[in-house]
Amino acid sequence: MKRIFISSRGNPEHLAELFRRELPGYEVLTAQPGPDDPAVQYIVVGRPAPGVIAAVPGIELVLSLNAGVEHLLASGEVPEGLPIVRLVDEGLALGMAEWVLAQALAWHRNLFDYAEVQKRAEWLPSAEKLANERRVAVLGAGALGRPVAGHFVRFGFDTRVWSRTRHDIPGAATFAGKDQLLDAVSGSDILVNLLPLTAETANIIDAAVLAALNQGAFFINGARGAHVVDADLLAALDAGQLSGAALDVFRAEPLPAEDPFWRHPRIRVSPHVAAPTHAHMAAKEMAENIRRFERGEAIPHLVDRTAGY
Amino acid sequence: MKRIFISSRGNPEHLAELFRRELPGYEVLTAQPGPDDPAVQYIVVGRPAPGVIAAVPGIELVLSLNAGVEHLLASGEVPEGLPIVRLVDEGLALGMAEWVLAQALAWHRNLFDYAEVQKRAEWLPSAEKLANERRVAVLGAGALGRPVAGHFVRFGFDTRVWSRTRHDIPGAATFAGKDQLLDAVSGSDILVNLLPLTAETANIIDAAVLAALNQGAFFINGARGAHVVDADLLAALDAGQLSGAALDVFRAEPLPAEDPFWRHPRIRVSPHVAAPTHAHMAAKEMAENIRRFERGEAIPHLVDRTAGY
Repeated sequence: MKRIFISSRGNPEHLAELFRRELPGYEVLTAQPGPDDPAVQYIVVGRPAPGVIAAVPGIELVLSLNAGVEHLLASGEVPEGLPIVRLVDEGLALGMAEWVLAQALAWHRNLFDYAEVQKRAEWLPSAEKLANERRVAVLGAGALGRPVAGHFVRFGFDTRVWSRTRHDIPGAATFAGKDQLLDAVSGSDILVNLLPLTAETANIIDAAVLAALNQGAFFINGARGAHVVDADLLAALDAGQLSGAALDVFRAEPLPAEDPFWRHPRIRVSPHVAAPTHAHMAAKEMAENIRRFERGEAIPHLVDRTAGY
Repeated sequence: MKRIFISSRGNPEHLAELFRRELPGYEVLTAQPGPDDPAVQYIVVGRPAPGVIAAVPGIELVLSLNAGVEHLLASGEVPEGLPIVRLVDEGLALGMAEWVLAQALAWHRNLFDYAEVQKRAEWLPSAEKLANERRVAVLGAGALGRPVAGHFVRFGFDTRVWSRTRHDIPGAATFAGKDQLLDAVSGSDILVNLLPLTAETANIIDAAVLAALNQGAFFINGARGAHVVDADLLAALDAGQLSGAALDVFRAEPLPAEDPFWRHPRIRVSPHVAAPTHAHMAAKEMAENIRRFERGEAIPHLVDRTAGY
């Protein structure tokens, strides 16, 4: 009998129950197996404590509970040659698209500005633009970027997508590689970050990128805090180059109480909720990946250690 | 030479310029013609002062600057038999879809709640639902309701559409007629009003409709204030049956400073900006309707006085 160890710090018992339902022929553990225990072929991990993965005997496949795996690669916790699968369940992509469009449309249609004007009981229509008068740049063309770009296209935004390698996205102009980054974002009113965090993309959102946007643009970060040079972001906000930013991710999480982001009048902080993992969809997707692995089939979202995601 | 009189109180000269560009063979007036002036075949009106339409000699077609024409029908200003065309330009439908989805997604993903929590610098993730765990009911299946429903369907919401007569909308369950109204809205988490205002639809959103929604539902009104029984709306908010409402239209506009809507903590007031008329798109659409009229072709959105829109 094959064995699965769920090492999540969240609610491992709930996840284990879902796995038992998906894979009835497997033994599902939530307690760390010892070195003399029978082989445990699969480990499901979020952000494991040091030594957790190495202590599991006989492991063949690491299933990440996150779409971003930069912490697994950086820590050296996963031995060379051991395959890692990122979790890109349907719920993750759906949730991210909802959250990004909620932030983008709320800014585009001035919802928070009207909430301020309402406090003064003032009837003050502002000039409303249509989506087809605004340009959006989406960084990332993967499982998250593609559906987000599709929604922007359908609302009529002039939509641009930038990624490491070129992808075709119906209705959007696409750009690829560092050389085309400034072209891709140039003149945009909304910038959306959905990149994986790698050595190449860390600090990618800096003064140069922000300066290439239209004056008064809006920045939406649903990826990782380390993509952004925080000082450059604050400077762009304070200079009026950006009119606002919606940030769901930060270099330190939870965001420390003393961080200036909390109190900045034009930053909207949310506590890493853009695309929460939905346990039932996650279990279904990971169980399917285990079946694919055992049938010797290609597994989508297998981590490429050279690319870093 | 055919003549067009622009009687808008907004910026008639700007609109006249756009008409001259669209219809170079026509004379375009912005000053009220007298009874002895040559015939003026076309009048473009928003909310005309009493007597304006009757004073125009030779008029053949009334072109409304609004999608809703209940004020023109109620005032008796337009003589029987004189055709009226509603303005349903592309910009109107686009703008309404943006605004409704902005309000719906902002509520669905708790943007305003997180803004409150942010004031306390508190990292407090709330349970996030996916769109496919929420039901939306859209009232109205016309030029505004259909594209709005389409966006809801694409985000994955369980989408229902109710209208006077049955329409097919891909991906949505559709309902028609007074008998099916409560069925249509039953168990919904978001209720969107995009109906025309007629004798049948005035006060349609009352205690019974609001009670049929899920507890804690959100109401979005982009149509007319007179669709809603205001006292029932306030009662549903105060009882927690509704968790909030986004209102763009009111029985009196501008909304009087003393109106309780302004100060209600769970009502978001906006000053009738959901779907502003975009002059260049409006002029293009109205010019095309004049050409259709002269060629004897069917004109879309010709008012049916029996139906009331």
